[in-house]
Amino acid sequence: MQIAFGLYQGFTALDAIGPYQVLTNLPGAEVVLCAERKGELSDDNGLLRFQIDASFDDVREPDVLVVPGGTITRKLARDRAPIVEWVEAAHARTTWTTSVCTGALVLAAAGVLDGRPATTHWIAYDELAGYGARPTEQRVVVDGKVITAAGVSAGIDMALTLVGIMAGAEVAQAIQLGIEYDPQPPYDAGAPSKAPSEILDLVTAVMRADEERVLG
Amino acid sequence: MQIAFGLYQGFTALDAIGPYQVLTNLPGAEVVLCAERKGELSDDNGLLRFQIDASFDDVREPDVLVVPGGTITRKLARDRAPIVEWVEAAHARTTWTTSVCTGALVLAAAGVLDGRPATTHWIAYDELAGYGARPTEQRVVVDGKVITAAGVSAGIDMALTLVGIMAGAEVAQAIQLGIEYDPQPPYDAGAPSKAPSEILDLVTAVMRADEERVLG
Repeated sequence: MQIAFGLYQGFTALDAIGPYQVLTNLPGAEVVLCAERKGELSDDNGLLRFQIDASFDDVREPDVLVVPGGTITRKLARDRAPIVEWVEAAHARTTWTTSVCTGALVLAAAGVLDGRPATTHWIAYDELAGYGARPTEQRVVVDGKVITAAGVSAGIDMALTLVGIMAGAEVAQAIQLGIEYDPQPPYDAGAPSKAPSEILDLVTAVMRADEERVLG
Repeated sequence: MQIAFGLYQGFTALDAIGPYQVLTNLPGAEVVLCAERKGELSDDNGLLRFQIDASFDDVREPDVLVVPGGTITRKLARDRAPIVEWVEAAHARTTWTTSVCTGALVLAAAGVLDGRPATTHWIAYDELAGYGARPTEQRVVVDGKVITAAGVSAGIDMALTLVGIMAGAEVAQAIQLGIEYDPQPPYDAGAPSKAPSEILDLVTAVMRADEERVLG
């Protein structure tokens, strides 16, 4: 069972590392991190520098595919970057094709989400709809063999859901206990429907400015 | 405001990346990743290879210190590895000294937790007590300028708590919304008191075997 994380310059670290921490604990799983080219990639802060040992060409038929998000996904999707081509080809033979956050835009550009219910970071619902998906506000959406997760931290919930489906509730519970995932956020502002409206306005403005900065 | 992550070969990725994703969003924060030596470090799976640009000598007076966990912390603590010396020296001048998971054992070996209430991964309560701390089952423990978090995923809750104290609830809520941290685990087995007893026995056995493998 090969589980491939499709990475790119500028991905958001927690989008990938949340499900990574769950899926590397799945018995029998071979997790591989791949990107367009071997070599160094950094996250969207430019602080985490990862050494990548496998290219997309090296990982043509993963059983499970995970695509994290990042502001730059808008550009990857629009330009049909190599990761989009890779997802399109690999998806034809995966058992599960998944995304976290705006990784859904990459799946959508690859045609994976055509007409499907799907989720993404709340800031990107309209963009996701523009690619023909049907955005929902659910945290994790399972539709056939495609699983999409909401923003950033939702990849943990997605991966536990996936493990539960693939390996059973006991295995998923064991992994949950191992990573002590008994979340107790000190605030209850983690979704647009829960955050105070001025907080929602602030974060929307900050994220739109980030898109402007990254996408020009 | 310099926030230093003290890393070492074999740390658990999510322990660090959870709080990293929160704290890199804190306005005015300069986040730095440091280790005994510059160069490459890998996580406990050996799959994530990080390039580290700062040594402990380069980061002598961080305002905030974060130490992630990993099975190897038992050895680091027992041997008073360089990270223990670094924490001991830096703690004298920090504003906040924090840990995630068994990173608490490093803090404890550095004398930071003497007589203090503190938390760690549930598997390590006894070891933590052995260093003179007073383990509690809370998810996040704030005691003076020291904040400890429970296992792996608890670093997200810890970092949001810290941001709330340092910068106010609005900033913490904005970051929570930005990373869409509205957790909805598909199971409720993330703490020893919640998991079925056979799952607890299984995970305890697996983790003890991992300690045996790593520590010899």
